Amino acid sequence: MEQINVSEHIEWAPVAWTLLAKLRLESPLVQCITNFVSMDIVANTLLSAGASPAMIHSIEEIPDFTPHAHALCINTGTLSPDWLPAMKVAAEVATASGKPWVLDPVAAGASGFRMRACLELVQRKPTVIRGNGSEIIALSKASVGTTKGVDSTHESMDAMEAAKSLAQASGGIVAVSGAVDVVTDGQHVVGAHNGVPTMQKITATGCAVTALIAAFVAVDPLHAFEATASALSIFGVAGEMGMETAKGPSSLRMHLIDSLYGLDQADVLSRVKITSLDEIRSSVN
Amino acid sequence: MEQINVSEHIEWAPVAWTLLAKLRLESPLVQCITNFVSMDIVANTLLSAGASPAMIHSIEEIPDFTPHAHALCINTGTLSPDWLPAMKVAAEVATASGKPWVLDPVAAGASGFRMRACLELVQRKPTVIRGNGSEIIALSKASVGTTKGVDSTHESMDAMEAAKSLAQASGGIVAVSGAVDVVTDGQHVVGAHNGVPTMQKITATGCAVTALIAAFVAVDPLHAFEATASALSIFGVAGEMGMETAKGPSSLRMHLIDSLYGLDQADVLSRVKITSLDEIRSSVN
Amino acid sequence: MEQINVSEHIEWAPVAWTLLAKLRLESPLVQCITNFVSMDIVANTLLSAGASPAMIHSIEEIPDFTPHAHALCINTGTLSPDWLPAMKVAAEVATASGKPWVLDPVAAGASGFRMRACLELVQRKPTVIRGNGSEIIALSKASVGTTKGVDSTHESMDAMEAAKSLAQASGGIVAVSGAVDVVTDGQHVVGAHNGVPTMQKITATGCAVTALIAAFVAVDPLHAFEATASALSIFGVAGEMGMETAKGPSSLRMHLIDSLYGLDQADVLSRVKITSLDEIRSSVN
Repeated sequence: MEQINVSEHIEWAPVAWTLLAKLRLESPLVQCITNFVSMDIVANTLLSAGASPAMIHSIEEIPDFTPHAHALCINTGTLSPDWLPAMKVAAEVATASGKPWVLDPVAAGASGFRMRACLELVQRKPTVIRGNGSEIIALSKASVGTTKGVDSTHESMDAMEAAKSLAQASGGIVAVSGAVDVVTDGQHVVGAHNGVPTMQKITATGCAVTALIAAFVAVDPLHAFEATASALSIFGVAGEMGMETAKGPSSLRMHLIDSLYGLDQADVLSRVKITSLDEIRSSVN
Repeated sequence: MEQINVSEHIEWAPVAWTLLAKLRLESPLVQCITNFVSMDIVANTLLSAGASPAMIHSIEEIPDFTPHAHALCINTGTLSPDWLPAMKVAAEVATASGKPWVLDPVAAGASGFRMRACLELVQRKPTVIRGNGSEIIALSKASVGTTKGVDSTHESMDAMEAAKSLAQASGGIVAVSGAVDVVTDGQHVVGAHNGVPTMQKITATGCAVTALIAAFVAVDPLHAFEATASALSIFGVAGEMGMETAKGPSSLRMHLIDSLYGLDQADVLSRVKITSLDEIRSSVN
Repeated sequence: MEQINVSEHIEWAPVAWTLLAKLRLESPLVQCITNFVSMDIVANTLLSAGASPAMIHSIEEIPDFTPHAHALCINTGTLSPDWLPAMKVAAEVATASGKPWVLDPVAAGASGFRMRACLELVQRKPTVIRGNGSEIIALSKASVGTTKGVDSTHESMDAMEAAKSLAQASGGIVAVSGAVDVVTDGQHVVGAHNGVPTMQKITATGCAVTALIAAFVAVDPLHAFEATASALSIFGVAGEMGMETAKGPSSLRMHLIDSLYGLDQADVLSRVKITSLDEIRSSVN
């Protein structure tokens, strides 16, 4: 995991800081159609980062509201058939309005219904898709039964080729959370090496970071690759700093959000660790 | 903001303490039909204050249940058409049962659907309406598009006249949250000068204080004006005390609820700061 | 309350530790169809204990997903008619798949609709039913109006006979939360004497412990009685340890979950206090 390619062409830490500073300055409005479990942590993560969250999921409101949002986040966590039409329409309105949108295909492989829903959403060309290893592999293969509930049974690095295929097929960025967060545009791959394992013992941290990606992409929609990697790394940094005082998953959740709120330039510049994984990928294949 | 009218006619702090003590003693049952984001913090706020929350939103249950509640809180945060009929019926049953009910018109101006829903609820004569500046202005003018999502773009003091108009039109109390919380019955205006800015970085603190207003009004329904101002101030005091040890928005949320639970008479008497704003209002106009 | 029967035939603390260790090792997948208020704390409780939660409630997904879950938890907290069919089908699929399922009949007596729903679920033979005193009494008598919202107006010991009747009628284990948590199979009764009163000031701790029961039963489905008593006691131990540093209900919630995550063998062996209540029961009647 520490076999890092040193030939990266971007100084990532200043990019991440610039995007976070822009996010705090502009406070983008991020519409979230997300699952019931995650609504609290998603909204609090966005607020702590400086964004303005709006949990609006009713199809009646989308024509009026979605064009004013700066980004849209769609999450399939507690999906039911009555929410799906609004998700599709919101994705279409966001695209038509020139706004980025991000998909979190939670538990994509848990059922045929969910897989079909996720595939229909992918067809609407999300700017970014973020999932765990099992979700990205399932979605890439359109196969049901490879996911164990919402927790991943695959490491992110094992999903690298699946992520690349999915990025090529969808035309967007694909991110895979794990010990190393993997981000690809279908050609290049970077790894965000921040975060701590205990974050996986807090429910909906994945959903939270997907929403944070939406906020980052909102302030720099033309550089979704950089925004995605930066958001993943910044969230991981907040987790690392939170872990310094945490005594378990619940205090980590609190300290993580406090840290995200308080992150300063020195924290970001000294801690963000994003590297190219292109060489590793080649050598793996 | 510190230009306070010194000629107030009520000693507010003892009123607030009396109401809080009564609330803890009587533990009123507060039915909440609220949004998904806020359910956790709303229920925990009510429990910490001494009330008994019940999140029951199904229209089938309202005839059996709502008459037994001591107050009803309706919040439009994650509104969808299937929840609206229950909100209307619950408001009607509460009124018919002689029970106070409180409306939180979250993001009233975010869409035509939401505005119409809020106006239909206002027609059912809530005992209290509490919103942020943008929501109260939008609702007062019945205008869509003045709200940026759920966060206010207007200060509470700028919404004072809108609040007064809405109070006169609805026949209830109207409260506007902000740096100063404004409360009016359409004639008089008071300001509750408690709270800290970081509370706005915690999702659903507005929803939580609306539910707390419902609990306060439940124990003194004939003095809804005093109950509303007291609840806003008490919640602000809990925030101030929580901020003394908080390190960010997430620890503030925890310390606020702990403080609300632990507030004693000395805390309330020394900290509650409610003043008449009648003079300021006149001089502004 | 301290009149404890000393003639217990089981050394409970080692049983509880064995089950917790098994749970951490096997990480059972626990499907939860639970209420909106509790989803966050339920998921975080399960994760902290070592289980893998999945909040999947859509009827479309049950045939694909429920057979893969190791246990199912159904909770009626924010029940509406559109969720009930999925609850029934999930219970049937779990039973057909040989998987245990646990029912939390939140506020069973709050309305006729809710009581009928709970009775329909009881007919599907839950492995375990856990409620507070008022809920178990209401459900045992099939009577509406005995519950004050979601908070109990009856002590657990007062519900002992109702619990026994309900266990005999349903064929499962019945647990009643309270100052002493009562567990019965319809014949024998034990009491779990752990926990602290402030836990009742945290919303959805009852829902959380019901889900924890599901996780314990998942790893030892043939000993549901022991698993239920152990889960209640372990959750109480986590509360006791959390209370040592808590300053109110919100910090208790955090410390409880942290403690549950960190519990070691010495904590469990020294603190778990489960005793037979058979003698007390006889002497009471």
